[in-house]
Amino acid sequence: MQEQEPISDLQAVDAILSKNGFDALVATAPENVTYIGGFWAMTHWIRRGPQAYVFWPTARRSEASIITTTSTLDLVADQKPWVSNVRRFGYFVFEGMDRPGLDPLDQAQVDLLMGEEFPGAVEALVDAIREAGLSSGKIAVDEIGMTPQAMARLREALPDLTIEPAFELVRTMRTIKTPEEVRRLRRACNIAEASIDASLKAAHVGMTEKEMARIFHRTTVENDATPVLGVIGFGVRSTLTNSQPSDAALKEGDIIRFDVGGRYMHYRADISRIGVMGEPSREIVDKYAALKNGVDHAYNVIRPGLKASDLFEQVMDAVRKSGLPDYKRNHVGHGIGIDGYDLPNIAPGSSDVLQAGMVICVETPYYEFGLGGLQVEDMIHVTEDGCESLMKSDRELRIVSA
Amino acid sequence: MQEQEPISDLQAVDAILSKNGFDALVATAPENVTYIGGFWAMTHWIRRGPQAYVFWPTARRSEASIITTTSTLDLVADQKPWVSNVRRFGYFVFEGMDRPGLDPLDQAQVDLLMGEEFPGAVEALVDAIREAGLSSGKIAVDEIGMTPQAMARLREALPDLTIEPAFELVRTMRTIKTPEEVRRLRRACNIAEASIDASLKAAHVGMTEKEMARIFHRTTVENDATPVLGVIGFGVRSTLTNSQPSDAALKEGDIIRFDVGGRYMHYRADISRIGVMGEPSREIVDKYAALKNGVDHAYNVIRPGLKASDLFEQVMDAVRKSGLPDYKRNHVGHGIGIDGYDLPNIAPGSSDVLQAGMVICVETPYYEFGLGGLQVEDMIHVTEDGCESLMKSDRELRIVSA
Repeated sequence: MQEQEPISDLQAVDAILSKNGFDALVATAPENVTYIGGFWAMTHWIRRGPQAYVFWPTARRSEASIITTTSTLDLVADQKPWVSNVRRFGYFVFEGMDRPGLDPLDQAQVDLLMGEEFPGAVEALVDAIREAGLSSGKIAVDEIGMTPQAMARLREALPDLTIEPAFELVRTMRTIKTPEEVRRLRRACNIAEASIDASLKAAHVGMTEKEMARIFHRTTVENDATPVLGVIGFGVRSTLTNSQPSDAALKEGDIIRFDVGGRYMHYRADISRIGVMGEPSREIVDKYAALKNGVDHAYNVIRPGLKASDLFEQVMDAVRKSGLPDYKRNHVGHGIGIDGYDLPNIAPGSSDVLQAGMVICVETPYYEFGLGGLQVEDMIHVTEDGCESLMKSDRELRIVSA
Repeated sequence: MQEQEPISDLQAVDAILSKNGFDALVATAPENVTYIGGFWAMTHWIRRGPQAYVFWPTARRSEASIITTTSTLDLVADQKPWVSNVRRFGYFVFEGMDRPGLDPLDQAQVDLLMGEEFPGAVEALVDAIREAGLSSGKIAVDEIGMTPQAMARLREALPDLTIEPAFELVRTMRTIKTPEEVRRLRRACNIAEASIDASLKAAHVGMTEKEMARIFHRTTVENDATPVLGVIGFGVRSTLTNSQPSDAALKEGDIIRFDVGGRYMHYRADISRIGVMGEPSREIVDKYAALKNGVDHAYNVIRPGLKASDLFEQVMDAVRKSGLPDYKRNHVGHGIGIDGYDLPNIAPGSSDVLQAGMVICVETPYYEFGLGGLQVEDMIHVTEDGCESLMKSDRELRIVSA
């Protein structure tokens, strides 16, 4: 089985583990299992509770291992993750295992089924840690995806093991995007843009938010992405920060706020555009222009070495100088990747510094009761000498003709 | 603000809490926050890590409370959950709060923003527990959605509090479905069926799995459901238990396996149907008939009082007597609700007993290397005097004409 090439920044993974004196990492949250091991375990993504791990010895000084249920071995055979060693747990039945002349895809599953069946995820993990000679080592365990019961059994089975939480540490590992990650993020972004375009093209007075959402998500799934964030709000509902499409109908003069983005090959989009049904009021035009100035200005200043907290101040200043003198925000953006909120935090007090290879969302949302919600949000790739937009669309207010 | 009527089985919630001597429950996993409090906190559902809770004193002997970030108060205003008391945490900015004559939706948000801003989720939860006079009480905490850090801070803040894990306990509370839950499950089920119908209608030699998946998910989103489970596998890929649509093209004689279901108003579908492109082989026809017999037979025996382990044996026997004498399975189904795997477990050794109001998936999957994957899976509502199918479609093998 020829495994896929890693698409993650595994050098950063090893460097951060080494720097912190860890002998190994155990990834447990869905996004981290996929990021560290190249393995997407379906049940792990669509439910809470199922356990799947990647055991990753620092710099792969011993063998890395995927730990997953027998019923998900097919996904290993099909995905060919770069971590190709697998420990399986749990009973599951397949027939025809000794048929001669099986298809390579069948054979890959049979080969995986030949491995020992562990009673549970923790027993398989303990076996991996023991085989690596790390029973009394120091291990970073992503605490978000492991149940407290599993954590307790791990501590009991390996009392000399030093365990430290790793969820925030793995977030730092994911900060810099590889070219393949940027490609996926760009595609996720462009699919979200196409979905907005299709929605606004169909917009008309009397259309409900749900009717528009059907067109939005239809465009997303027709482009092989999965709906995740689908905030669409008309008029007074545009002020709802997380507006879920309702039966509210579009009226003349209404703001149409999109804060949206699906998942393409596991990678997220998160963008915002604003439409107006017919003629926008002067207040909407002016305030939108100020918010857009904030994002426009970000493109002028984003470069490696800029502090995220300075970017925050620059964007806030640009908005305040151009029509919203009292503009206040907790942040004006964040990284994006396999999770919708990667590092950096573009916020006051952030210690993050922009680096080439980051992909960031820069946004200037504004919610005013009695007026509506306005927002501009772009996905931007930080490059060696500045930045490039991942967007295909401009940032103008989109006027929908009646 | 007129809150929505509860749609959950809150009598069961209180009865199970009382029986186990708990003074209160803290729901933390997304499905449990929605189930117990009627509140759907978007970021909680689409990411891992964000915290949202429902504090539920047993039998509401003091006030229940939603604990969520300030940035999600809009969802409270819009959803009007039956738990209407809210404790918010975190900084978020809205303008226009003192404009006169606000729309009721705006005003509802302003009213929520008037509440105290807690620094974090744990501080808000501690305040709720203290106000209920339960600082030294016994509380069930759903351990899946609370970070270990939050759990540690809770224990530190309230050292006299007795905390026991509740995730499995809340699963037992969700077992019996109310009429509104059954309605949503039926609709989710019928949307999945319509998506299969549309997919098979478009099926033709040379079509790829991805092309079919686009039609499948498009039908789902056009019916206001969200894609979740989208296993579609052709030919050798039908044996992949979790087949994710690929560029593999449909060939004459191929099995087309669907194991699918989205989410409608938070409630899940999980059904399976099998198509064949052109003339199926005798082996496929015969083995499918045996598997179908298993589910057919389930309809004859499902009634309140039947042990789930007996249902397992009955279904297994029916399959074994009708063409697959060596049929083996770990289970032949499970409950379904706001999670895809609710109780009961239809498995050997299960202590669950069928009760009126349960909604169950009965399934007879069969994976044979060299042949393919075959599966029948229906959603069935257990009624006072037997059962009713939630399905609109029959269980026959679907022959696609070339």
